[in-house]
Amino acid sequence: MALVVQKFGGSSVADTDKIKNVARKALREKERGNQVVMVVSAMGKTTDGLINLAHQISDDPPAREMDMLMSTGEQVTIALLAIALQSMGHKAISFTGPQVGIITDAVHRKAHIKRINVKKIKESLDIGSIVIVAGFQGCTEDNDITTLGRGGSDTTAVALAAALKADVCDIYTDVDGIYTTDPHICSNARKLEKISYDEMLELASLGAKVLINRSVELAKNWNVEIQVRSSFNDNPGTLVKKEDKSMEDVVVSGVAYNRNEAKISIVGVPDRPGIAAEVFGRISDSHIVVDMIIQNVGYNSRNDISFTVSKEDFAATLKIAETLCKELGAEKVISDEKIAKVSVVGVGMKTHCGVAAKMFRALAENGINIEMISTSEIKISCVIRESDLDKAVQAIHNGLIINAEPGI
Amino acid sequence: MALVVQKFGGSSVADTDKIKNVARKALREKERGNQVVMVVSAMGKTTDGLINLAHQISDDPPAREMDMLMSTGEQVTIALLAIALQSMGHKAISFTGPQVGIITDAVHRKAHIKRINVKKIKESLDIGSIVIVAGFQGCTEDNDITTLGRGGSDTTAVALAAALKADVCDIYTDVDGIYTTDPHICSNARKLEKISYDEMLELASLGAKVLINRSVELAKNWNVEIQVRSSFNDNPGTLVKKEDKSMEDVVVSGVAYNRNEAKISIVGVPDRPGIAAEVFGRISDSHIVVDMIIQNVGYNSRNDISFTVSKEDFAATLKIAETLCKELGAEKVISDEKIAKVSVVGVGMKTHCGVAAKMFRALAENGINIEMISTSEIKISCVIRESDLDKAVQAIHNGLIINAEPGI
Repeated sequence: MALVVQKFGGSSVADTDKIKNVARKALREKERGNQVVMVVSAMGKTTDGLINLAHQISDDPPAREMDMLMSTGEQVTIALLAIALQSMGHKAISFTGPQVGIITDAVHRKAHIKRINVKKIKESLDIGSIVIVAGFQGCTEDNDITTLGRGGSDTTAVALAAALKADVCDIYTDVDGIYTTDPHICSNARKLEKISYDEMLELASLGAKVLINRSVELAKNWNVEIQVRSSFNDNPGTLVKKEDKSMEDVVVSGVAYNRNEAKISIVGVPDRPGIAAEVFGRISDSHIVVDMIIQNVGYNSRNDISFTVSKEDFAATLKIAETLCKELGAEKVISDEKIAKVSVVGVGMKTHCGVAAKMFRALAENGINIEMISTSEIKISCVIRESDLDKAVQAIHNGLIINAEPGI
Repeated sequence: MALVVQKFGGSSVADTDKIKNVARKALREKERGNQVVMVVSAMGKTTDGLINLAHQISDDPPAREMDMLMSTGEQVTIALLAIALQSMGHKAISFTGPQVGIITDAVHRKAHIKRINVKKIKESLDIGSIVIVAGFQGCTEDNDITTLGRGGSDTTAVALAAALKADVCDIYTDVDGIYTTDPHICSNARKLEKISYDEMLELASLGAKVLINRSVELAKNWNVEIQVRSSFNDNPGTLVKKEDKSMEDVVVSGVAYNRNEAKISIVGVPDRPGIAAEVFGRISDSHIVVDMIIQNVGYNSRNDISFTVSKEDFAATLKIAETLCKELGAEKVISDEKIAKVSVVGVGMKTHCGVAAKMFRALAENGINIEMISTSEIKISCVIRESDLDKAVQAIHNGLIINAEPGI
């Protein structure tokens, strides 16, 4: 008998028919002889509706009361799901985050889980009930309701799976797994059978939006196996798990991309210690996250500093860069919003060489110019023209995944 | 400095503008130097919407899960109200029923409050906050969410007022007090300055729907003064309080009516002991509440037994009566759905005679036939033709209230 945690997001429980569908999924798992804990989000656009109500009253509603408000969304879903399961003749019981003892810190709207008291869940599982827990929420030691921020229901599911020592944590979503790249761009994209936590972290931060980084980090820390799978069919999904020997044979697991970046260069910066600290300190003071950074020492002891930020932060960052340019006595600021980033990810890179060269060749053969390059142990990213993006993803995917020679 | 409990029903918080309006009401009370505890219901038709969702899934949803579902309605209101008060620059904090320690028995959907732990509320009041509590809900010792049934928010308000030893419990509603009768029938109906608990109980059970009997009973038991007043103006309302000497001078406080009754008579029942017990035992076994009962010993040692039930129970009761008629060897069953009940209520009746005669005279002078009569210490009720009801209410109201000679 396995213990399975199943998580269903808002689109999987958007109406009462979908809730019944999700109930049947849990029943099938139960009928296989397993114990089932379900974690669910608020129905469809419920949370947006609640936020809208609050904003009709205040532009800046207090975080504690927003948590009080938003946590009702998941509470509605768990009750309806328990009603659905019981109407199908099965024992089921719902619990809110606070009821189930999900204790968090007091940072409202993005609280972190401190511990979970699984006694109530275990008692209910022991008498044969399917246990339904509201995702995204918990409470402080003082019994104030908190919410866990973006992707909070995934976090609840992974944390519960860890606390319960579950055999697997199934994250149901509207795709049936993690793909080697976006199937909308490459029709020959393949579903991955498994992927390591680190690869998943790189893919998520590169714009593959299936799992939020925080849940993957939690899963990695607690060694919880996540299965990403579709709520609309029963196909096996993709296992996100600890890196194993077999994964190293696959040099490149996925090709990711991000259209949401813009590039800023401060050209001709005097080359003296502390300049980079000054530049990026000032940007981070404005709570702007910088992605890629490249610094070239050029002629006449002058530097070019280039970096990318998300398109939303572009205007604000440009302003800071112009100010810095004057203060530092640099030549000028060059900016470019028409860029995109394409990346290859794979734990196999740690033991195989030549991946970067192969990626650059794939781009060159298709006449695509590389504007910036950045690498990590398991990732290589290139900034290119936005208009070249689809072609670049296809070229790299074909060259490094579809037609990959084993071990390169 | 007084401690004021304010209760606002669903129509007073139906949208965000109304919630802001309610917030301003609390602020004015606070600015008078008083401590304020607010109790609120779910917004407008929210509860109906939630029940509808549940019924899309099951015809008979389990009570525990319905409480889980429905309690979200009030939770939304308290959060929005706290947001409104804080946006107006005032300290305010919201609590769910479970958070505030409203402990109930485990009878889901109609739980009774066992005790309230007011520590959290007092701490918040002491630091100058307006405290907002979700009405209608509590939790069991085991932390299961419960709801208190119809009129549950009134019950919460009265129970909190008792536990906090509040100076007054203001129940805000869409009328501005208790009237001598329905102003839609008698344009000269007067708002009462005060009324005793017992009179209010009789009026409520007679169909004046402002306060649910249970809250009045609680208020009477705990000696909580209730003020029924309008959420749309600042006029003083009607105080519902312990009977005092001055109330006895007013012989008739109000004229109430009820169109929702039907009459059934079992005619020619053999006159032997135990017949009434048999008849009403059988009806009560079907969970049907009988209102008036009249039994006349007639000719030949045969009885006529007449009684009234609510119109919803009429068809089921008639079936039972037909069966009983055969079993008991009675002559026949006569039924009548076209009746109404008119009643006068007043604690002064206990010390003044002649009220009944005056009521019957008012009806007779207007050509209205009396079909049944029933009396209690502070109430006289007559069953008449439904078509005569408006005329009857006007005649009695004019005769016994508007033109009442002091002390009769």
